[in-house]
Amino acid sequence: MAKVFLKSINRRISGGHLWIFYNEILKVEGEYENGSVVDVFRPDGSFFGKGYINDNSKIRVRILAWNNEVIDRNFIKNRIESALKRKKKLVKETTAFRVVHSEGDFLPGLIVDLFGDYLVFQITTLGMEKMKDWILDSLIEIFKPKGIYEKSEGTFREKEGLENRSGWIYGEGPELIEFEMNGFKFLADTRGQKTGFFLDQRENAKMVMDLAEEKVCLDAFSYTGNFAVHLLKGGAKHVTLVDYSERALEVARETLKLNGFDSSRYDLLPGNAFDILKSFDREGQKYDLVVLDPPSFAKSSSNLESAKRGYKEINLRAMRILKKPGVLVTSSCTQIVSEELFREILFDASFDTKTSLTVLRRGGQPPDHPVLMNVPETQYLKFYILQVDKR
Amino acid sequence: MAKVFLKSINRRISGGHLWIFYNEILKVEGEYENGSVVDVFRPDGSFFGKGYINDNSKIRVRILAWNNEVIDRNFIKNRIESALKRKKKLVKETTAFRVVHSEGDFLPGLIVDLFGDYLVFQITTLGMEKMKDWILDSLIEIFKPKGIYEKSEGTFREKEGLENRSGWIYGEGPELIEFEMNGFKFLADTRGQKTGFFLDQRENAKMVMDLAEEKVCLDAFSYTGNFAVHLLKGGAKHVTLVDYSERALEVARETLKLNGFDSSRYDLLPGNAFDILKSFDREGQKYDLVVLDPPSFAKSSSNLESAKRGYKEINLRAMRILKKPGVLVTSSCTQIVSEELFREILFDASFDTKTSLTVLRRGGQPPDHPVLMNVPETQYLKFYILQVDKR
Repeated sequence: MAKVFLKSINRRISGGHLWIFYNEILKVEGEYENGSVVDVFRPDGSFFGKGYINDNSKIRVRILAWNNEVIDRNFIKNRIESALKRKKKLVKETTAFRVVHSEGDFLPGLIVDLFGDYLVFQITTLGMEKMKDWILDSLIEIFKPKGIYEKSEGTFREKEGLENRSGWIYGEGPELIEFEMNGFKFLADTRGQKTGFFLDQRENAKMVMDLAEEKVCLDAFSYTGNFAVHLLKGGAKHVTLVDYSERALEVARETLKLNGFDSSRYDLLPGNAFDILKSFDREGQKYDLVVLDPPSFAKSSSNLESAKRGYKEINLRAMRILKKPGVLVTSSCTQIVSEELFREILFDASFDTKTSLTVLRRGGQPPDHPVLMNVPETQYLKFYILQVDKR
Repeated sequence: MAKVFLKSINRRISGGHLWIFYNEILKVEGEYENGSVVDVFRPDGSFFGKGYINDNSKIRVRILAWNNEVIDRNFIKNRIESALKRKKKLVKETTAFRVVHSEGDFLPGLIVDLFGDYLVFQITTLGMEKMKDWILDSLIEIFKPKGIYEKSEGTFREKEGLENRSGWIYGEGPELIEFEMNGFKFLADTRGQKTGFFLDQRENAKMVMDLAEEKVCLDAFSYTGNFAVHLLKGGAKHVTLVDYSERALEVARETLKLNGFDSSRYDLLPGNAFDILKSFDREGQKYDLVVLDPPSFAKSSSNLESAKRGYKEINLRAMRILKKPGVLVTSSCTQIVSEELFREILFDASFDTKTSLTVLRRGGQPPDHPVLMNVPETQYLKFYILQVDKR
């Protein structure tokens, strides 16, 4: 096994972060293939930990363990089982949750979501790709699923030197996997975004139910209708779902039917939410409640400025088209925008619209998408329910 | 009515903050008594808002309204009623909640807690003191309570030129007021701290229940047993309550009896939690779960450094006396320590104890203690449930 020697031990690394950057490495002794497991040593030569290496990534090594244990099938299985154990006490009223959340569950590069009797997984690094057989064996042993779907897609795979791959890799299942969440029915779309459903909004979406009663709502960036279902179950008078993807709206329509809502209570509007918010604002269209659950506007800090503009624009438009008092449900799902910055953006929009914002609920990541204090990048989801008043 | 002219309009003031500092005022025209309502004007002479003034406070004016409405009995009653309306949808499973949370409910200087059939209120400013009759009349009309207890105590009253005052001011009630919260029985101590019970930890305390099962727990700074009751109801094997106040522990004992717990399941240990944590650490005493709910270590930014040391010390000791993996329930209730700083302090303690911290739950202020985005000082309570692992 190759030996990686650290140039120095900084506060981040010795504080339990799982990433060793290329410029933090002094030298590597021995032969290795990209993706293979290496031993990492401190500058003084003492053992630091084990991880997998990839010369094609700026994150040269991702730490898997701080003690000198064997990284094998059993190691992977134990890690999945302890993630499961941690989550089972905390995740409730759902047949779907995230089993493995990459770094957050000490398995960097691996995402596994459970949807009823099926599993959907995603591998984002070469190091994890090399352990795919162990992962599959472990998942089959632990869950005895009817099917496992691989959904390894995304630009990050290219950087790691990996090709995209999607399809049933064990057993078989439907294109749309039905599951229950918060007592309601949903569909994970194996042809949709990420693993097919954004389970990270499960607890946040439930929070809007208390505020939905009798309200006329706009669900912008609705995807397949997670917030819309909760609003309608909470007693909303009407919900307009907006999404650029016609397929997402078709799955949303199926989901709304599955839950038995009268079709007079909702509208599906395909289109660019930015443009639609702007035109509603121009036309003087008003809502009691607006949900904003946009995709990540920033993948890296290089597009932080445009992301800030994007978040401000949609929040400002939403504040303008809300009746006063109105309810704004707003989120941001990129770790590039910190919670403080997101609050600043909301304040900015409040400043320009001469409104006052009272936090009715603050959400975040549910416990199946854990944040590690030692790896701040694991925190990405911000969520607020705000009462918007005129000033 | 006196007229206050602002020196300039800064981003904070025109962004909806409710405080006008002494050095932000150009001049005051007309006679006024401290505590009276004044009209506030922008530098260009246009109307800005209404508030009450006090020359004895650096916060010279606290804004009550941004439009030119009459500040009278009806104004106060409307404000209390709209706070109540906002909260009723969100506050559940409790006969006790905070009805008015000062700035957070647009009534700066007034705190009102409901405990079953009784109300406890606290006035912290001279401006509110002048409206006391209107407040009392409104509370009686809205709640028809059996009794209203005034608990106007604290150093801030001195600064405002007010004396402390405590006692039943309407009707009468017991010294310990029984109420239900999250389905359990509690006692508000009219002779205790603040309004007699820390209702702001209601939702946070409920979260620990999922993690209590079979655990040996330490509840440091237990006060009258809020966390201890939730731990025992959640199935904890044993809870040790530590508080410096023997009276608080007596009320805790009453509370634990009320909830029917066998006395073999808890111990009450009077003393300084700092010393006790240190001695447990020295003696190698270990726990499965530790709760830290300390009082505010910083009232103003001048003692921020000592507060940081205090928070780090107790969190570090708790991490040391926890079995690994163990559960740390930790909070900070001063707005002087921001959420980011609190996370840094926790990371510091994790660094020194060579542990890894996984966020199992993040809490904060419940909706009856609202945060205003436009008044960042309204955010004070930080709360985390962490899994502490050895690294």
